[in-house]
Amino acid sequence: MKKERIYLFDTTLRDGQQTPGVDFSVEDKIVIANMLDAFGMDYVEGGYPGANPTDTAFFQQKRTVRSKFVAFGMTKRAGVSASNDPGLAALVQSKADAICFVAKSWDYHVRVALGCTNEENLEAISASVEAARAAGKEPMVDCEHFFDGFKANPGYALACAKTAYGAGARWVVLCDTNGGTQPAEVREIVGKVIAAGIPGDHLGIHAHDDTGQAVANSLAAVEAGVRQVQGTLNGIGERCGNANLVTILPTLMLKPAYADRFETGITEDALAGISRLSHAFDELLNRAPNQQAPYVGGSAFATKAGIHASALLKDPQTYEHVTPDTVGNTRRVMVSDQGGKSNFIAELNRRGIAVAKDDPRLDTLISLVKEREAQGYAYEGADASFELLARRTLGAVPSFFHVESFRCMVERRYDVTGNLKTVSEAIVKVIVDGEEKMSVAEGDGPVNALDIALRKDLGKFQHEIEDLSLTDFKVRILNGGTEAITRVLIESHDATGARWWTVGVSENIIDASFQALMDSIVYKLVKNREAAGAVAAE
Amino acid sequence: MKKERIYLFDTTLRDGQQTPGVDFSVEDKIVIANMLDAFGMDYVEGGYPGANPTDTAFFQQKRTVRSKFVAFGMTKRAGVSASNDPGLAALVQSKADAICFVAKSWDYHVRVALGCTNEENLEAISASVEAARAAGKEPMVDCEHFFDGFKANPGYALACAKTAYGAGARWVVLCDTNGGTQPAEVREIVGKVIAAGIPGDHLGIHAHDDTGQAVANSLAAVEAGVRQVQGTLNGIGERCGNANLVTILPTLMLKPAYADRFETGITEDALAGISRLSHAFDELLNRAPNQQAPYVGGSAFATKAGIHASALLKDPQTYEHVTPDTVGNTRRVMVSDQGGKSNFIAELNRRGIAVAKDDPRLDTLISLVKEREAQGYAYEGADASFELLARRTLGAVPSFFHVESFRCMVERRYDVTGNLKTVSEAIVKVIVDGEEKMSVAEGDGPVNALDIALRKDLGKFQHEIEDLSLTDFKVRILNGGTEAITRVLIESHDATGARWWTVGVSENIIDASFQALMDSIVYKLVKNREAAGAVAAE
Repeated sequence: MKKERIYLFDTTLRDGQQTPGVDFSVEDKIVIANMLDAFGMDYVEGGYPGANPTDTAFFQQKRTVRSKFVAFGMTKRAGVSASNDPGLAALVQSKADAICFVAKSWDYHVRVALGCTNEENLEAISASVEAARAAGKEPMVDCEHFFDGFKANPGYALACAKTAYGAGARWVVLCDTNGGTQPAEVREIVGKVIAAGIPGDHLGIHAHDDTGQAVANSLAAVEAGVRQVQGTLNGIGERCGNANLVTILPTLMLKPAYADRFETGITEDALAGISRLSHAFDELLNRAPNQQAPYVGGSAFATKAGIHASALLKDPQTYEHVTPDTVGNTRRVMVSDQGGKSNFIAELNRRGIAVAKDDPRLDTLISLVKEREAQGYAYEGADASFELLARRTLGAVPSFFHVESFRCMVERRYDVTGNLKTVSEAIVKVIVDGEEKMSVAEGDGPVNALDIALRKDLGKFQHEIEDLSLTDFKVRILNGGTEAITRVLIESHDATGARWWTVGVSENIIDASFQALMDSIVYKLVKNREAAGAVAAE
Repeated sequence: MKKERIYLFDTTLRDGQQTPGVDFSVEDKIVIANMLDAFGMDYVEGGYPGANPTDTAFFQQKRTVRSKFVAFGMTKRAGVSASNDPGLAALVQSKADAICFVAKSWDYHVRVALGCTNEENLEAISASVEAARAAGKEPMVDCEHFFDGFKANPGYALACAKTAYGAGARWVVLCDTNGGTQPAEVREIVGKVIAAGIPGDHLGIHAHDDTGQAVANSLAAVEAGVRQVQGTLNGIGERCGNANLVTILPTLMLKPAYADRFETGITEDALAGISRLSHAFDELLNRAPNQQAPYVGGSAFATKAGIHASALLKDPQTYEHVTPDTVGNTRRVMVSDQGGKSNFIAELNRRGIAVAKDDPRLDTLISLVKEREAQGYAYEGADASFELLARRTLGAVPSFFHVESFRCMVERRYDVTGNLKTVSEAIVKVIVDGEEKMSVAEGDGPVNALDIALRKDLGKFQHEIEDLSLTDFKVRILNGGTEAITRVLIESHDATGARWWTVGVSENIIDASFQALMDSIVYKLVKNREAAGAVAAE
């Protein structure tokens, strides 16, 4: 049986821009558009040319190859002709392939927000759609507040949608702008729209997550007949966010209830890159990925329950609703003081560390982890520090070098010319092969200075760590009872493309950072030897 | 028409404990149980007595007053009698009011995980339920993997549920253990279970968020007839988490589709405290609240779109799906370089700062905010720093004191007795009323030392800041192009119970912290004068 095609419309660059704290530059938009285009989205909505300098500049070129490049904008104002509307002109003159007009479909908003008559609004819709068609752009219409408008005045909401369709809009998109509509209502109202004569393969859904059901509302609309789904990467968007395409897509492609009936423009290979896409986007937003995110989250296929863990290892399928690889994610058996022995063994094996279930050093390691996690260490988030702790406990990690002492100094004062000036300096005394080496460095802040000084001269190991660099640094204050202690997590990476996290805990942020820096360097040295398969020989 | 009662079953302390990174102590559990009890949950599942020392200790007392206190555990093992099963003994001897047994209802798991026959499993279910009843505990049964089990072998899954009900279980809970079931499947299967003779007011739903639809699945089950909903605070739980009761509850109570048919044990007053409950729980977990969380998130009623903002202020209802106060949240018009003028004016008015729309200083402020946000400042998250910037731009903030210079030193070395020792010291030179004061202090780390030294002697202002304390400290590395810059957010509070956030941005973490500390102190001094209504007189 021929599968029906579902079209994906990404509005990360337009509605996603409404997310508190998110503000894309033209460069950001170019990078993100490329990611979406390469991934295979059918439509990439880039913004609102004419509304702000960034979007106007962004639309001076076509920014996608495979995806249709969409400009968003308002329908023409009442009282002026389409040809005399500057806003509309900016849209048709942009380098977009398609124009998505936002049109009021709730009579209340027509009156209050637009201040025109219902008829003028309908006329604006048809005139705008026709102007886009005349300019050779694929026209579509976002019916704003459609579901609330339909509840208030079904006749008028339908009239808006039918006017758009009648004027030749490729897509009429039903928007739950305020995000409060429930899936059952979406199903019912979409059914009525189709019954009113707009075929489902010309209908889209635009859902918001204000009741935590943007994904469910989108899928309910698909079940009811719509064939275009609008959403964003990682569900960013105004208020609680838009429908999360990163969640919807795997469900459409992997769940028989949908996969047996529908197909998308996304290949299986592309789907296997969706975790990477999601994390790359968070990187770009400079925020930590949501560990609990469906399909792509670091915890999505993680288990720490002892009993589950052992059964899971017997037969993953029975504890996983889909296979992690299909979405480019991996199974994780958590190391945590909740975890049973089998978790530790599985995790250690994954890291190429063999250990027997009855090895007493394994019990030592488990109690060490419990003890240190009680102090504030978080090995779940610091794989490299865990591996070092395990190797130290189970085998031998060579003591490559020894830090005798360090000193950091930060001074802020007015210089001779009267400008405020801050200088950070670190001095490190380290012993390599019995030889004492003292290094001093300035840096952007004490941790940076300490990092530079520490890696300035490690004697014979120096050449090994030249490609090591610190890529992220996170600080968390743990209120462990009376005294606040600081947890520092550091992400490092090297020329091989490997990334690893290390952790340090102390009352003192510099001390905690130092621990994490040390772990990072030692892990790198151990890793080099592992690669050379020579740890034993050390 | 008589409304049907929906029962809320909170498993934050049991299934929530499976969240990677979450590990409750007995003290944590006592605090959380009190929060849930006071809020009005019908059932509070506290853990698994007998499975670990924490839970065993926790169940040595009844920990709730209004809520039923529930112990979770496995049904008796096959081959032993209920009276000889130590696990079951721990449950019936606990101080719980009710026992929730987890029972396999997927024949595959009966064979693989339990290694017993289907009949032995049924016998274990009925014997366990009867043992709980005999001990005077309200019995309920979580049918693990019910939906997957039903798809594989409907007859056996139903047999498990019917056996539990037949043996006298007050609730038979249908669990989507792997979290992959879709709402339409939930509706259909729940319907079949009811048709098979188990009344809906004896059925519960336990959903997981692996396809982002735990909330939708729970509500679909309610629509299909179940009357108990299991979930957790803020949706914590294994993998992608459990159904989020903080999202489900407002929907049940505020959305006509549910509110007209159902009632819960939660009062409207309690509901108005749900934002506080959600944030207090995050505090306890020591993690930042999810800004985008439905109903309770900091962004849930926030808008930064210029057009929306102005219309929103005209008539909130038309842009908000519920009123923020009903869930104890507040409307926010974001200050951000996306925001239009009206956002700024609204935000300033909210802070008691009056300004005319045509005041040129307002344009200065807007461009200042844009400029500084481009540098990395995040005023959305630092209300106090924003208010200071606004007051400085629009009016006058007295220059209470001037910091001439500061110096921080952190030294780590082995002391005479050979122990590693780290000392942090800060020296601050400050001018108050033309008088130079120099203060030195040691602290847990350089920022703490700087904070102490800075607040050690501010002359005539000293008594005003004695109740000021630093409660949280967040550091974020912003990769602004080539050079990484650091953003520090500091939360302060004082004896009046007020809390405020300040921000600092610099390449240097100490510099950034210093800016945020200064803003915090100055804001406190301005606030004192505001309270005294005397800023003008200054």
